[in-house]
Amino acid sequence: MSTARPQPLDGARQPAQPTDGRRARGMRSRAAILGRSVQMASRDGLEGLTMGELAGALDVPKSSVFALFGSKQELQLATLAAARDILIEHVVLPAIGADQGAQRLRALGEAWCAYLVSDVFAGGCFLCAASAEMDGRPGIVREQVARVMREWVALLEGNIEAAIANGEFAHSVDPGAMAFRLNALGMAANWQRQLFDDSAGVRHTRLAWQAELERARR
Amino acid sequence: MSTARPQPLDGARQPAQPTDGRRARGMRSRAAILGRSVQMASRDGLEGLTMGELAGALDVPKSSVFALFGSKQELQLATLAAARDILIEHVVLPAIGADQGAQRLRALGEAWCAYLVSDVFAGGCFLCAASAEMDGRPGIVREQVARVMREWVALLEGNIEAAIANGEFAHSVDPGAMAFRLNALGMAANWQRQLFDDSAGVRHTRLAWQAELERARR
Repeated sequence: MSTARPQPLDGARQPAQPTDGRRARGMRSRAAILGRSVQMASRDGLEGLTMGELAGALDVPKSSVFALFGSKQELQLATLAAARDILIEHVVLPAIGADQGAQRLRALGEAWCAYLVSDVFAGGCFLCAASAEMDGRPGIVREQVARVMREWVALLEGNIEAAIANGEFAHSVDPGAMAFRLNALGMAANWQRQLFDDSAGVRHTRLAWQAELERARR
Repeated sequence: MSTARPQPLDGARQPAQPTDGRRARGMRSRAAILGRSVQMASRDGLEGLTMGELAGALDVPKSSVFALFGSKQELQLATLAAARDILIEHVVLPAIGADQGAQRLRALGEAWCAYLVSDVFAGGCFLCAASAEMDGRPGIVREQVARVMREWVALLEGNIEAAIANGEFAHSVDPGAMAFRLNALGMAANWQRQLFDDSAGVRHTRLAWQAELERARR
């Protein structure tokens, strides 16, 4: 595992291009399986993911799931990568049009809240759930979950640093502490919505996120 | 399940008193099993809890665990109740000496942070983990997890209301929104510590909790 400072999350991976028809069909199957596995894992956890249940849900032979992923761990890692792409699509890319710094932070907060209420994942924010599930299970899946969460926090922190450099935020703002608080708000909105079936947390988060950006200007 | 507004968490249950020697031994066995099961569940989840593994870890026959708990669900509910008692002991009772209102909120924040860094549970805050694990699994265990978390948020909210009534906090403070933000800070500190093996989040939470109380005075 790389221990370098994580890159911010605003560079989506380019999917490899298929070079022949068989490979193109394999990639479509893979995408279909991952489309289902991210939903299953958001509800039942990455540990709850099994090739057998996934094959049953998609009405395909288990052997074809195995042929594409080879092991439960490979399936977990591919599911996590697919969830990361969904997070980029729904939360990061909608904010890319806004200028780096305070404007992009505001856009990221709006996109995150919109993503939480749109129920992109059946079981709420995939990464929030995976963080809590995997934190006590050492191994490569846990490391990858941590890597994606570091990328997300680094994206917030980078934009706070940019806002300070732009003169939008005061020099006294601590980027790490502020990124921690912004992330705490979004995770808690997800928690309240999932556990209490209550979107009040999303409203609290929208207001508190804006208030954080206002206070940073002083 | 009661749907009444949750009671705050500051009334610990009185354990039943044993009436004879056999019953007293049964309660000691029960306490020993629950002492282990809360640790196992904090790391592997409430769903990961099995009577067989628990019996193996304690080197007792599985039948004796079964005789005390009867079903996995009963074991999960008893484990959750034991975790609630530990939360009361480590976070709620240390703050009971402080006056209701702003002083008690400050004491609760300090006790929560102290509890997070003292690793009372092997896998971090039991209720934070159980919330994320159970939110997508309808049933009585999920309802009980939600009930304890509502009690905790109600405890924060009740003290915010008391601080407003005492004239310590401004009348413009929204108790529900402020309780949400305070809870978000503690949960995020647990998340950062568990996933990144990093206590910076606890420092951020201590400072941000104090800043919340200061801002509420305006």
